[in-house]
Formats: sequence, structure tokens, C-alpha cells
Amino acid sequence: MKLTMRLGVRSYDIIIKQGGLSRVGQLINLNRRVLVVSDTGVPEAYLKTVLAQCREGVPVVLPQGEGTKSLECFGQLLTVMLEHGFTRGDAVLALGGGVVGDLAGFAAASYMRGVTFINCPTTTLSQIDSSIGGKTAINLAGTKNTVGAFYQPSLVVADPDTLKSLPERHFINGLAEAVKAGLIADEGLFELFETEDAHEKIEEIVYRSLVMKKNVVERDEREAGLRATLNFGHTLGHAIESANHLGGLYHGECVALGMLPMIEDASLRRRTRAVYKKLGLPSRIRYDGDEIFEFIRHDKKTGPDGAITVVKVPRLGECRLDKVPLEDLKAIIGEGVR
Amino acid sequence: MKLTMRLGVRSYDIIIKQGGLSRVGQLINLNRRVLVVSDTGVPEAYLKTVLAQCREGVPVVLPQGEGTKSLECFGQLLTVMLEHGFTRGDAVLALGGGVVGDLAGFAAASYMRGVTFINCPTTTLSQIDSSIGGKTAINLAGTKNTVGAFYQPSLVVADPDTLKSLPERHFINGLAEAVKAGLIADEGLFELFETEDAHEKIEEIVYRSLVMKKNVVERDEREAGLRATLNFGHTLGHAIESANHLGGLYHGECVALGMLPMIEDASLRRRTRAVYKKLGLPSRIRYDGDEIFEFIRHDKKTGPDGAITVVKVPRLGECRLDKVPLEDLKAIIGEGVR
Repeated sequence: MKLTMRLGVRSYDIIIKQGGLSRVGQLINLNRRVLVVSDTGVPEAYLKTVLAQCREGVPVVLPQGEGTKSLECFGQLLTVMLEHGFTRGDAVLALGGGVVGDLAGFAAASYMRGVTFINCPTTTLSQIDSSIGGKTAINLAGTKNTVGAFYQPSLVVADPDTLKSLPERHFINGLAEAVKAGLIADEGLFELFETEDAHEKIEEIVYRSLVMKKNVVERDEREAGLRATLNFGHTLGHAIESANHLGGLYHGECVALGMLPMIEDASLRRRTRAVYKKLGLPSRIRYDGDEIFEFIRHDKKTGPDGAITVVKVPRLGECRLDKVPLEDLKAIIGEGVR
Repeated sequence: MKLTMRLGVRSYDIIIKQGGLSRVGQLINLNRRVLVVSDTGVPEAYLKTVLAQCREGVPVVLPQGEGTKSLECFGQLLTVMLEHGFTRGDAVLALGGGVVGDLAGFAAASYMRGVTFINCPTTTLSQIDSSIGGKTAINLAGTKNTVGAFYQPSLVVADPDTLKSLPERHFINGLAEAVKAGLIADEGLFELFETEDAHEKIEEIVYRSLVMKKNVVERDEREAGLRATLNFGHTLGHAIESANHLGGLYHGECVALGMLPMIEDASLRRRTRAVYKKLGLPSRIRYDGDEIFEFIRHDKKTGPDGAITVVKVPRLGECRLDKVPLEDLKAIIGEGVR
């Protein structure tokens, strides 16, 4: 399956294809220097498959985990490119999950003010969500995605075969973003989680999630308004993630939790919780409300007026932006999601 | 005098005005958090003038010199912003020369994927050249401008009064970019250097140089083609600068040297040398040709095919792009500019 992200001169294709990883070189020129960025969580066989297609592939395998989205690793990638004589015509290829994609994308955006960026997401989370949209980022002092660029890839190849090697919890974690896509814009996608087996329907889930995101990003590339709806569950979710990153909750799990208080209809909230249970996503958490609030205060979406725009879902498949004074949000946050 | 850079939604004004530094707050909203980035070479009085206009100004004064355009200083600025709770609605203001502008601009481009950037250049070089055009950058491992972003400021205020405090050599250094503007596109500007006193005509020199650059940047914001003409003298100039940064040659001085071998008309070369002598710019240098060649090999403008596009001036006010194999360039470089 192929989707084309239509963004004028920054348009690009998203290929969803079994075995796609071994065909990247047929879709884009790899006859040049290619920095292939991966992490220790990605099977070595995938790296070999990609490198075999590059004229001059330079692999960098970073430690798996959020800690890799750092200024230090950013500098490391740039230095490797410089040492290998990368020019403006060369490329960066991300092979891994969101951490690898975000970091490698920011390096591609910044090296010589921008070289070709190819994204090959290998996790459900990155195939469903982070690989498209052009948001690249690193973390700073424990705050997520503080530094980065809007920078579109030239090609995205999502190979569903790569999901088979994921640990189950990791596989399920990514589905939270697909549940999100259903809740805010695609009733049928949400109902698919209620009635079908997610493993069997994974290609359809990835495809429908990407269609939803593509429609939003095409109309609002740089998050002037509409695109903010994609942040559904992310304000609270990011804060939970920041507070719990030692507690080991995954990004999707945090987003799943973060969506619940923003669903206004009680019966939809129950249905969502039931989907979480079926999938194995967490649906309850206790936390320190003050700590969570501190993280939200530093959120990019918090305005200078001390208000923050959050996304609410009044009913299935619909959402709206709501500007809330930070103090009011404190009441919504409470001391946990229950 | 006011110029408007017309770049669609990224349009902005350039104000050239005596005493402009004390009126920035009348031109743009400073009623927010403003990171004011300066260096030890900028008189403290200017910093005070700017801070007095900000509701919540956060000054950062970095060591003067090219060493400040580093990944470390980039991280420092971002960390200060995060610690002070900067949000997307806040701003970064550069107060200084090209080093400060390039570094602060890249930080503004990257913090939360972009906050408002205000540039107040206080040197001839930055007023004439680096403050407009939207190129931001830091250096990496001694190679100039390897990392950065295309990111337009929201306002540029060039106050000619600030040039009065510059050491003479520093003042003259910046004029090299104005001589460049004359050579490639404005006969009258070049002749002004031959017939008039540069100190007396500085406002006109700044204005005409900016008009030339504005016309080029408007037609080619991201250097697809035409904009490359602004690199006249810079390929060799940057290499000389990289090789000599301990020898203490300034950027403009290096560009002045770098232009000479690219002027094809012998009589124009003589006239240019005469202008350099009048101003006090260097017109001859000996160097290690192999070392210079190594720096050029790493230049952003070098393509994967091992050729580089250089700018040549066939006659006064005209220029053309010329794609040269690196090996041929070696002959042009020689062992010095004579």
C-alpha cells in the first residue's frame, strides 16, 4: 500500500509493504553516502538488509531507549557524518522506533542545514505515528522533545514484517496511537479494536492510522491549529512519561492513560477502557499531581498567558481543541487516572 | 530606512536606523520572555538598552570569537531557555556580530521547533551580510557552519550607531561583503568604494548591500540556485578562514582574499586590489594548497560527484555559477593569492 503525503515541494511517499525493507534502494537513490542510524533493540539482520543496498553505508548503532534522544547523540551523528565527508547530496536513514527516527531526523535536518532523510520505522508506534508528520526532536534535561525541527522525510518505508520480532508489550504499546486515531477521527478503526484481533489486522490498523494523520498534517504541516488535535492524550501522557521514565512506562501506555480524562462521554470512556484491557494497555495509574503539573507547565503547548490548549473527545470519532487555564487543568489531572 | 524581506508567511522587516537599538520594543512585542544573546565584545551599554525594553529579559553573554559557535554553547542557550520556562510564544534576540546571530538563530530555530527570532546586528559584517537571509549555524570539529537551519528572523534592527564602537580593523572587515555585493551585482556600490570614504557612506553601503542580498534571497530562499551567487569568494575564503583561525584573519578578510582568484577580468582584479588597499583589507596571502584543498573537500557546496560550484565574476556587476571538478580547483587555489 502506498500513501503520498502532499506537501508541495516537500511531498513524499509512505510505503506500507511486507518485505519493504529489502526494497528501499528501488524506491530512492542509495548510491551515495548513507548514515544508517539504528539502536541495540533492532535486530542486526535488518541493519544488514539496509546496508547491503547502500553504496557507502555508515552504520551507527546507539543504545536502545529514550536516553539516546540527547544532544550528545545528536552531536555524535553529526560528527560521524563530517568525518566520513558527507555532503549535501548524501542521506540519513533511520532504522528503528521513534527514538531513532526523531534523533536521526533532527540530525538530517541540521547537517549542512538539511540532507535527505529516509525513515524505515520498525515498531508499531513509529509505523503508526512518529514516522510521518515531519516532527523531529531530542530531549533536554529530561523534558521530552524540547529541541528539534519540522523536517519532512523524502521516503517512509513501513515493513510490517519487522513488527513480528517485537516483544508483545512493545507491539501493543504502539497501538495506543491507533486507538487515538480512532477516537478522534475514525469510528470504524476504533470499532475494529473492539471486534477484531489487532495482530491479524495490523496492516489495516497501520494504514488507517496513517491516512488519518496524513489528512491532518497535509492541512496543517506546522501545527498552526488543526494538527494540534493529534496531541490528544499527549499533554498528560508526556507528563506521565516524564515523571515515570524510570518507572518504565512506554510512550503509548502513557498516551493511553492521558487520553482517558479527556474523553467527555462516560460510556465512550468505558468502551475505551475495555479496549485497553483487551489489548493489555494500562487503564489506571496513581501519581503525584504536583509533579505532573510541573511537567505540563514546561510543555511546548503552554502559552505565555499560562493557558494550555488540550484536545477533548466529546463522542467517538470527534474532537475539539479546548484552551484551559493551567490551574483548571490541575483539577482534571487530579492524583491519578481512575 | 526600512526594507521588507518578502518571503510569504516568513516575511519580515529590516530596519536601518540610528538609535534603532532603543526602539526594538516599539517594533516587536518584547512583553514576554526574551533570551538576549550577546558576547564579551559587545559594549554592556547595548545589552542594558535592550534588556530595559523586555518584560522578562534573560541575558547570556558568551565569550567573543568563533569558538562560541559550538554545540556546547547551543546546548547552553537551550538549557537556559528551558530553565526559565520559555514557551513557544517567547523569543530569542541576538545582539552582536555574526557569531552571536548564527548561534542564537539556530537556538531559536530549534527550541520547541522554533520560537520568534529577533536579530540586532552590531558589526558591519553582520549588518551588511549575516543578519539577513535566514542562514543559522554552528561549527563542528573546526569546520564552519556544518550544522544549522534555514530560519528567518521576525525582525532585524541594524543600528549604525553601534558601529562607532568597533575597532577599525573589525569595521573594515565587514566591508568585504559590501565589496562582494558590488562586484557581483551593483557597479555603483563598487565604485563608491573607489571614490568615497567608507566611514562617511556607511548607511548607504549597508542599505545597498542589503538590497542586493534581499533581491537574491527573495528569489531563492533555500539556495536552490541563484542564492549560491552570494557565496562569491566564500569557498576559498572559508577554507582560508578554517586554516588560519589561529593566525587571526577575520571572516571578511578571508572572503576578500577568496574573491580575487575568481575575478576573471585582470583589470577588475587590479581595481579590486586597489579598493582593498584603500580600505586596509589584505590582498595577498601564502598558504599550504593541500591543506586548503582538504577544507574545500568538506565544504557544504561540494557535491557527491566530487565537483564544486564556484562563483566567478567575468566583469563588474556580473557573476555566474561554474561547476568545477575539485582537481581543477586545485590549480586555481595554488599556493596562495598573489
